[in-house]
Amino acid sequence: MKNERGILFILSGPSGVGKGTICKALRAQKLNIQYSVSATTRNPREGETHGVEYFFKTKEEFQKMIDQNELLEWAEYVGNYYGTPIEYVNQTLDEGRDVLLEIEVQGALQVKKTFPEGVFIFLTPPSLDELRSRIVGRGTETEDLINNRMAVAKEEIEMMKHYDYSVVNDEVESACDRIKSIITAEHCKVSHVQPKYEKMFRS
Amino acid sequence: MKNERGILFILSGPSGVGKGTICKALRAQKLNIQYSVSATTRNPREGETHGVEYFFKTKEEFQKMIDQNELLEWAEYVGNYYGTPIEYVNQTLDEGRDVLLEIEVQGALQVKKTFPEGVFIFLTPPSLDELRSRIVGRGTETEDLINNRMAVAKEEIEMMKHYDYSVVNDEVESACDRIKSIITAEHCKVSHVQPKYEKMFRS
Repeated sequence: MKNERGILFILSGPSGVGKGTICKALRAQKLNIQYSVSATTRNPREGETHGVEYFFKTKEEFQKMIDQNELLEWAEYVGNYYGTPIEYVNQTLDEGRDVLLEIEVQGALQVKKTFPEGVFIFLTPPSLDELRSRIVGRGTETEDLINNRMAVAKEEIEMMKHYDYSVVNDEVESACDRIKSIITAEHCKVSHVQPKYEKMFRS
Repeated sequence: MKNERGILFILSGPSGVGKGTICKALRAQKLNIQYSVSATTRNPREGETHGVEYFFKTKEEFQKMIDQNELLEWAEYVGNYYGTPIEYVNQTLDEGRDVLLEIEVQGALQVKKTFPEGVFIFLTPPSLDELRSRIVGRGTETEDLINNRMAVAKEEIEMMKHYDYSVVNDEVESACDRIKSIITAEHCKVSHVQPKYEKMFRS
């Protein structure tokens, strides 16, 4: 498997579906995969380290990255910028390691344009009721906000068609197993391994 | 997952690569997958049961199946006919169960024409040296026959490009794990699950 380029996996899905939880669980399993580190202009929270949770940038630095096309995608959210530096992703892939990028739906659609060879995984709720109870469960939202987020989530689920895979987040462990299977399967794709065989049989 | 149609997986690869061994190991794991049963005109060997190892047919019966397009593929081998009955495959898929079909490369290419929605998995040797030693290891072949079979195997490996996945048979357990991952991943394909979600969100 040496000298093969890594694969970029994009994990996305509607707000509230549990992307962060799944990503954390995958990290805990110490897979041979690198987690993409985003750049942001928001202030570090307690315990966050530059280069680990985020690359913390000033607005000027971030604007420069946008201008120089150094981001796979970026977005503004509640007054702050968030984005994915291309360089970090490409370096890691060139080293032959896979990259997992956890990202909102709109960002994933941007990545699809800038990096179409990525493998796009959509995390789905088992049902709309379940999604609502997860959003309510956070306990921080008013009824209006909950309805609004549900409407957005429904629109986001429509975006599933732009993805390669859809993984239902019924249980964290099962969802992680499915994602690991997708990673394994993608490495078995003929388009991925054929160059290696052609080389082997020529020598 | 109820009411989803099953998926037909075709496991193929060059002669000597170990398709039979892998298939036997998968069977032992009692996966939720049905193994396709071939029709043949050859005589049953000791311990073989009609409908289990093969559907045993007369030449006349087999010819009728050919004429009525009742076979996904068929071939003549050492004076006997072998083929895959379509009806058995379709019935099983309609029941929502996957089918695994273990088959020679030429047969798989025929199935690709008659059943392009199948998932085609190509089993490869770790190296040509390894393939040669497996063919020699059977101890039943002369040097000429071995060279001939190696030449055929090289041509067959060229056929990998017509397949979806390539699984290296380095160790039986690892190869089986990769195939199981492919099965899981294929069930997560958006093209496979989207109709279910559309239905869920419409109701």
